[in-house]
Amino acid sequence: MLKNPTTKYHPFAPINLPDRTWPSSTITHPPIWLSTDLRDGNQALIEPMHVQRKLRLFKLLVDIGFTEIEVAFPSASQTDFDFVRHLIEHHLIPDHVTIQVLTPARDRLIRRTFEALQGAKRAIVHLYNATSPVFRRTVFGKDRLGTIEMAASSAQLMNELAAEQPQTDWYFQYSPETFTATELDFAKDICDAVLDVWQPTPQHKAIINLPATVEVATPNVFADQVEWMHRNIARRDSVILSVHPHNDRGCGIAAAELAQMAGADRVEGCLFGNGERTGNVDLVTLALNLYTQGIHPGLDFSDINLVASTVEDCTQLPIHPRHPYVGELVFTAFSGSHQDAIKKGLAVQKLDSTWEVPYLPLDPADVGRTFESVIRVNSQSGKGGIAFLLERDYGLVLPRRLQIEFGQVVQQAMDACGQEMSATDLWKLFEIEYLQAVSPLKYLSHQLSETEKGEQAIALTLLMNGQPVALTGQGNGPIDAFLTALNAGIRIHHYEEHSLSQGSNASAIAYVEVASDTFPGSIHGVGIHCNIVTASFLAVLSAVNRGT
Amino acid sequence: MLKNPTTKYHPFAPINLPDRTWPSSTITHPPIWLSTDLRDGNQALIEPMHVQRKLRLFKLLVDIGFTEIEVAFPSASQTDFDFVRHLIEHHLIPDHVTIQVLTPARDRLIRRTFEALQGAKRAIVHLYNATSPVFRRTVFGKDRLGTIEMAASSAQLMNELAAEQPQTDWYFQYSPETFTATELDFAKDICDAVLDVWQPTPQHKAIINLPATVEVATPNVFADQVEWMHRNIARRDSVILSVHPHNDRGCGIAAAELAQMAGADRVEGCLFGNGERTGNVDLVTLALNLYTQGIHPGLDFSDINLVASTVEDCTQLPIHPRHPYVGELVFTAFSGSHQDAIKKGLAVQKLDSTWEVPYLPLDPADVGRTFESVIRVNSQSGKGGIAFLLERDYGLVLPRRLQIEFGQVVQQAMDACGQEMSATDLWKLFEIEYLQAVSPLKYLSHQLSETEKGEQAIALTLLMNGQPVALTGQGNGPIDAFLTALNAGIRIHHYEEHSLSQGSNASAIAYVEVASDTFPGSIHGVGIHCNIVTASFLAVLSAVNRGT
Repeated sequence: MLKNPTTKYHPFAPINLPDRTWPSSTITHPPIWLSTDLRDGNQALIEPMHVQRKLRLFKLLVDIGFTEIEVAFPSASQTDFDFVRHLIEHHLIPDHVTIQVLTPARDRLIRRTFEALQGAKRAIVHLYNATSPVFRRTVFGKDRLGTIEMAASSAQLMNELAAEQPQTDWYFQYSPETFTATELDFAKDICDAVLDVWQPTPQHKAIINLPATVEVATPNVFADQVEWMHRNIARRDSVILSVHPHNDRGCGIAAAELAQMAGADRVEGCLFGNGERTGNVDLVTLALNLYTQGIHPGLDFSDINLVASTVEDCTQLPIHPRHPYVGELVFTAFSGSHQDAIKKGLAVQKLDSTWEVPYLPLDPADVGRTFESVIRVNSQSGKGGIAFLLERDYGLVLPRRLQIEFGQVVQQAMDACGQEMSATDLWKLFEIEYLQAVSPLKYLSHQLSETEKGEQAIALTLLMNGQPVALTGQGNGPIDAFLTALNAGIRIHHYEEHSLSQGSNASAIAYVEVASDTFPGSIHGVGIHCNIVTASFLAVLSAVNRGT
Repeated sequence: MLKNPTTKYHPFAPINLPDRTWPSSTITHPPIWLSTDLRDGNQALIEPMHVQRKLRLFKLLVDIGFTEIEVAFPSASQTDFDFVRHLIEHHLIPDHVTIQVLTPARDRLIRRTFEALQGAKRAIVHLYNATSPVFRRTVFGKDRLGTIEMAASSAQLMNELAAEQPQTDWYFQYSPETFTATELDFAKDICDAVLDVWQPTPQHKAIINLPATVEVATPNVFADQVEWMHRNIARRDSVILSVHPHNDRGCGIAAAELAQMAGADRVEGCLFGNGERTGNVDLVTLALNLYTQGIHPGLDFSDINLVASTVEDCTQLPIHPRHPYVGELVFTAFSGSHQDAIKKGLAVQKLDSTWEVPYLPLDPADVGRTFESVIRVNSQSGKGGIAFLLERDYGLVLPRRLQIEFGQVVQQAMDACGQEMSATDLWKLFEIEYLQAVSPLKYLSHQLSETEKGEQAIALTLLMNGQPVALTGQGNGPIDAFLTALNAGIRIHHYEEHSLSQGSNASAIAYVEVASDTFPGSIHGVGIHCNIVTASFLAVLSAVNRGT
């Protein structure tokens, strides 16, 4: 059993902010996006990306529309250093894109970072040191003042090194790492101290980035922390307030969204939530959450499958089948009642009017997904999904009562095999059930002629239990004449026929529902033939054979 | 490019609840848990579970400690019906566990549902109909009154059928499906109408379950909706208020947590977030989120690997490597600075005192995970992780400056190969670098004796470039004597030695940092031998050979 946690773990102390305003706020525009796929995402991979894979992902990020991309931690590895040099020396950074690099608050590493950036047109240098009590005490052995001094002197060195490379347009960013576990007043003090050194202006802002390095509480607490900083940080008009949520409690998306309501201008994260441990916040979900509220995110996920496969290739990590907006199963309905509602919703959905299809918060087509995967049939499915698949892939428009009858046939097969059925599987089952039964009666040929009274006369040849028989009859139409010739007490309850859009020989499909003295209730039959009359005869024989 | 979404999608209208109280609330106790793994989870599988897999998962859920388990949708498939019969007829439901089954608001299906439950000691019958405008209009073609009548008459039939099976202790649950997209006043009206029929009491409550069938807004909006219902629903003292979040916007966890702050007593979900489309809310993450706040969830995830593998087997779906608390990578740190901080944090962490290890919100041991996976080394890692792995698996306690030197050796190898390195890989690299160099000098033997002055005298035999040489020397100790004999201008800057916990022959390892006139700076050497004196000589020779 899980041990009693009361001595080992303690509840996160709530933020005292009774006049918080974020809960009454809504998000009305996208944040400034910063992709850290090539840095935070990369450092959390089992096998970090080499230059070629990094370049491929960088290109994808540019194509998606990111204008700020954290590309490396150049002082941490030669690969990262070389990658920055490669981007600069090969002029691979479009003019509208600003690269960002991360550096710890250590002189040697800051110098190495500026070395990596030589010749860049524009760059964000992202300085961090951890600020929470456990880091000050256990990792650095510094008090509050010592920790501030560490950040401020690094900020000062950045001023100096930037002045030595005036050809680059420099932007500075500071992260009080482990912000969520840092006392708010101290977080403000250290950010203010760094800003004092940098002296940003409303025309040339600095970025203050608040990382949920580890998610430590419910996401409303993070929103409170961000709103407190938003209200209390110095020089707010000269600061871009950024957040960097991780997902340790599974609330990274919520944290980023509530933080925007609380005053954050910018969000750092990764595609599909790659990143340390449980990952950085997923920028794709954030962007498409905006989209489904009618807000264009400024990022292009109109071909989400391409984005997904590129990211999977580069990171060598899978995307989960239930991942919002992109997973294999997220546009899929197996359950019969869901399928039925989706079918009805799609039928009345008008192009370019408000999207209102049940169970689908996003039109799959908007992200380049087809409806192929929307309706899939397993033992939890009903007639709606079955009919949908047979219509979509085989052009069959099953009459409603035939849907019910065939639904039960499918259900039995499903209960027996336990597996999902594709449209092909359903079609095979339909063929076996309705089209392949030729015993006791098998159609061979017929001749129709008109009688003097204007009735139809038929000369019909069948195999009956393998023996040829010749029958004749008359009626007010071909089917009536056929039934008279059969002379089996068969009554037609319902008849439908339509042309078939698929199949080389097949041009018409006839559905009949018949009753007879020889079997109880009514039963369906189906016939396919290029002659619409023959198709209807085949349908009647199908029903008779099934009922025998 | 993504199309302009403004005509197709509209922002969710915020809830007018300026005096909401949930943002100042915290969660102080676990909710009533309802697992719907066998129902909502099952119906969203590519291949739904057969009886044997359902039984295996049912047993797991009971073992974890769930006391309310939704086991089936008995009117939807024969498999589900049979499963309920199997549980009852084979007496597989422990006395403290209540099974729940789902039924739509249709007379025939309700009757079938009660049929499935015959002989049950106790059961929750869970009635639902969809209540949002699009469903009323498009799917059912009913107005508000017609939709209420549908629910109320079904509720009435449940009363009657329950009265016919008095041997069962009945509990009733109603879900206004698609609650999140339903007008709040109508959601209240339909719930009130159902409660009017059921007449629950504080002693025998009914469950009102509010599903985020589709997640349609930020999670604070769901909390507002729940708080509104909590305040306005009739007979609140006779109602257990339940929520059933899905994860379409990636905020299922947040929705469930904020909803509890807003007044919800009960949460329905699935292990690891299985369920329709993006899944139901993940009960494992919810439970362990409570645990890391010092609140015992009342569920047992002390062997989370077992739970995970059973669920993966039963659902045939994977758990993502970044899934909170359970994914392969979530207790892993690749980055050097993270590894360094974790190492320091673990060093000062006292058993059973407050857990304060950086980057690890949960002690992996609490859920049966080992530290095996916490620190892994790739090209983003630093000396800390390397030293950690060599100490953990090979008993080496590397001096700090040797860590730096060897860290650079590893970094070069890593930049070249691009792959993760295991402890074994690191040990091999360490052996090659420090232990296998026997040229130009190879130790053969030595004899120590004490001089009359109390000094150590040494008679030393080495191979020098393959030729045996005999050397002698004196000094105030064996190493001093050895250096004199070598006569190579070598100065020892640092010396450390410790016993080795592993290895059959090895009993001591010596580390030296030496300087010499023949090479610049200082360099490390390492020797291993069962004789501590010999080990130190080997260390000096290792350094000399490396420097040559």
